[in-house]
Amino acid sequence: MKQTILKSKLVKVETGNIMIAVLNEIKAMDLGINAGDRIRISMGKKHVNAIVDLSSVDILPDEIGLFEEVSKELGIKKNNVKLKIKQVPNPKSVEYIKKKVNGKTLSYDEIYEIVNDVVHNKLSDIEMSAFVTATYTEGLTFEETISLTKAVVNTGNTLHLKNKLIVDKHCLGGVAGNRTTMVVVPIIAAFGLVMPKTSSRSITSPAGTADTMEVLAEVEFSAEKLEKIVEKVGACIAFGGTVNLAAADDKLIKVRHPLHLDPIGLMLASIMAKKKAVGSTHVLIDIPIGEEAKVKTFDEAELLGTLFESVGEELNMKVDYIITDGSGPIGRGIGPLLEARDVLMVLQQHENRPLDLEKKSLELAGIILGFSDKVSRGKGEKIAKEILQSGKAWLKMKEIIKAQKGNPNINIEDLTPKAYKYEIKAKASGVVKKISNRSIAKVALAAGAPAVIDAGVYLEKIKGDKVKKGETLMSIYYKSKEKLKKCLDILKENPPYVIE
Amino acid sequence: MKQTILKSKLVKVETGNIMIAVLNEIKAMDLGINAGDRIRISMGKKHVNAIVDLSSVDILPDEIGLFEEVSKELGIKKNNVKLKIKQVPNPKSVEYIKKKVNGKTLSYDEIYEIVNDVVHNKLSDIEMSAFVTATYTEGLTFEETISLTKAVVNTGNTLHLKNKLIVDKHCLGGVAGNRTTMVVVPIIAAFGLVMPKTSSRSITSPAGTADTMEVLAEVEFSAEKLEKIVEKVGACIAFGGTVNLAAADDKLIKVRHPLHLDPIGLMLASIMAKKKAVGSTHVLIDIPIGEEAKVKTFDEAELLGTLFESVGEELNMKVDYIITDGSGPIGRGIGPLLEARDVLMVLQQHENRPLDLEKKSLELAGIILGFSDKVSRGKGEKIAKEILQSGKAWLKMKEIIKAQKGNPNINIEDLTPKAYKYEIKAKASGVVKKISNRSIAKVALAAGAPAVIDAGVYLEKIKGDKVKKGETLMSIYYKSKEKLKKCLDILKENPPYVIE
Repeated sequence: MKQTILKSKLVKVETGNIMIAVLNEIKAMDLGINAGDRIRISMGKKHVNAIVDLSSVDILPDEIGLFEEVSKELGIKKNNVKLKIKQVPNPKSVEYIKKKVNGKTLSYDEIYEIVNDVVHNKLSDIEMSAFVTATYTEGLTFEETISLTKAVVNTGNTLHLKNKLIVDKHCLGGVAGNRTTMVVVPIIAAFGLVMPKTSSRSITSPAGTADTMEVLAEVEFSAEKLEKIVEKVGACIAFGGTVNLAAADDKLIKVRHPLHLDPIGLMLASIMAKKKAVGSTHVLIDIPIGEEAKVKTFDEAELLGTLFESVGEELNMKVDYIITDGSGPIGRGIGPLLEARDVLMVLQQHENRPLDLEKKSLELAGIILGFSDKVSRGKGEKIAKEILQSGKAWLKMKEIIKAQKGNPNINIEDLTPKAYKYEIKAKASGVVKKISNRSIAKVALAAGAPAVIDAGVYLEKIKGDKVKKGETLMSIYYKSKEKLKKCLDILKENPPYVIE
Repeated sequence: MKQTILKSKLVKVETGNIMIAVLNEIKAMDLGINAGDRIRISMGKKHVNAIVDLSSVDILPDEIGLFEEVSKELGIKKNNVKLKIKQVPNPKSVEYIKKKVNGKTLSYDEIYEIVNDVVHNKLSDIEMSAFVTATYTEGLTFEETISLTKAVVNTGNTLHLKNKLIVDKHCLGGVAGNRTTMVVVPIIAAFGLVMPKTSSRSITSPAGTADTMEVLAEVEFSAEKLEKIVEKVGACIAFGGTVNLAAADDKLIKVRHPLHLDPIGLMLASIMAKKKAVGSTHVLIDIPIGEEAKVKTFDEAELLGTLFESVGEELNMKVDYIITDGSGPIGRGIGPLLEARDVLMVLQQHENRPLDLEKKSLELAGIILGFSDKVSRGKGEKIAKEILQSGKAWLKMKEIIKAQKGNPNINIEDLTPKAYKYEIKAKASGVVKKISNRSIAKVALAAGAPAVIDAGVYLEKIKGDKVKKGETLMSIYYKSKEKLKKCLDILKENPPYVIE
């Protein structure tokens, strides 16, 4: 095909790593090129394939608009550089996406091609959205889910730890607070098992584990640095995003977010790929059930748990799952600093520590300890309790905090919120029957969490507590009157406490 | 919610009319804003809602990148203008798209909301792609199709013609050549019926009717101008895109193109909305069937025809359909100029005119004439033939060409291609049993059609012709050796002629 010569026009902004070049609409028509088609842009021996966008006035017929990623890749720093342009076929992955849209089953090679192109920014938003939507409407077979998981592992970064037994956990979420990971990891590591835990930041919740850990230490490390931390202290609690463990997954989240698309196959692949990528051999999946949790019923949770086990089997990982109570918040603090304080209280065995968080953490830690053949059947939880009560877990946490460049001498008092406090009082006496996860999360978000780290909600009364009219149910920590007003509006519309 | 003040940074390129603003990634995290979320950008009393994109380096934390459409809307012409930023909820249409993705049925109001937001550029590529994909995988019910059609009409432009009977036709396509519209319209208008025909340009074919008509006259007119042309000469053959008759549809095509998604509901709505928008009361749908046509089988065609009839009924349009032979090209020329010459030969009753094109055109014209109560049952085709043979159709076409600012004195000789010619010879003697639509279209495209208007293919031998070894089967009209080489490669891989 004949080449065309066009002059560079720099568009000085990034497009989120996707290579995009802009052609004049009329010129493109002349060349038989449509929006979304691919062109190869060459300068000397350098070349880059880009997705075509069209412009009717800003780009002249003899120009080609180059977004930052493209000009960087080609090393072009000024306008009017002559470039050779040639249309090239769409990547094969586009054809495979169409195949999925048509309800067909994809092979490993086809899925790998799609995932690899996602990682290398070769697909447009339109194409990725079609893939995610079709994955949602058409579903993925079990084999496709395995293929997807393997493809995500094979196209992302991996840790290279030499230990025979590497344990991990994951919680499906939807429960406010619930910061068990930060209690479980030091218990497990104190026992001597290796637990390279990577977690996410909040996307729509008041805090992710990474946001909470960041109150105490740094959480962003390269894969190499993370390996060193784990080799040294036996564990880490880091942000997975920086490590690029499941790069494809991180890129697909951008597409899944606007419509909150959570196809089960993508979810399984995303979670399990991250576990495989750190080298986990044994994984515990925590599946909270509740009206407002991600999983609503016991049957659904059983089915999902079995799926996790099966996917694990195909990837040579032993997976156990536990179905837990997700009907209300766990712990008292909601928001990065308040949750970190809860964790410290448990690890330091403070008298006012949230016992529900401690209880659930011990249960999870018990099962994970059971992955070791040094732990007799049914004895895990007891060992976990000893490690926690003896202060060994707190000592280990200090090591982890230090390895992650935090202050190991931090204390509960250091975690006093500096934000304003507003107390919500009970309007009647009774017993707390229920606290709504969703409403509490909304209030904490409105108060400013997770961006404002000490903003959020503190539950002064929890499920089962007796309450007298006028007593404080919860405190809101907020930074500005506007935010407080928003919180109060939410409370009016969605009262979180059910008192009977 | 609290407002943030950011400084403008102009990104001097359009984004295809969608309002996009770019925030610094870290700043967005601070504000709790994700890519794809909506923000309101205000300057004094002016404001605009935009979709958020993120940038990690090019946009500083105190800046907001404004694409051309946004800065134009706000009237901002320089950097560092202070703007108020506030997150606003996603449009309701996003929720309705999710509903469709979940396989639910949408109401008219919900579909209207989506279509209206598409027209007003309020949805991102991700969201539109999810909608189109879900429409494809989940389908649309009959009621949804009607809703969609009405919504497309109600959000687009319409013609306001006062005639009681307004006729129209549409062909589902997939047949090379087949330029019947340009023969049918002058016959119908010469009889005295009103036919405001709007057509598309080629997207992936060697020529659309609009491209072919453009060889003879202008085809881009505003709705007002088009009304005047039709009032004056009783018909037009124009490009629908300029008139914005089904604005939503034109915008969705961008999303449908990369994966060639042609959901039947969207297709029905797209076609019928355009007919309704020009005010058509009676419409003929031409459904060619063939292995390589859009519709493969007679049963499929029957089903589709019935659907068109039913949609028409709901929109107060009388729809008739005809199932035609789509097994091979109709006419001899493939490419804008060569097809225009075929049409002129038929209208001027030239001795070498393509008789298959004439025959099919008369059949279609006959049915359309039958929509008039002045035409007795079964007499339409005979009347059409008289109009064509008497030269009245050609006279009317000259009027149309003149009204559309073309040269009415154009002749067949003026339509001699200036491109190079290469003849493909028969390798054996026999009878032409079949010519492949797809292969011929590919060769014509490779030769340069429709951008190079006189490039394309001319079929020297057609179905049923006897051929001797060494005789010319077809001629390729091309502009450069590179293009010819591509044509010959295609011919080698997909030989279009079957001779037995």
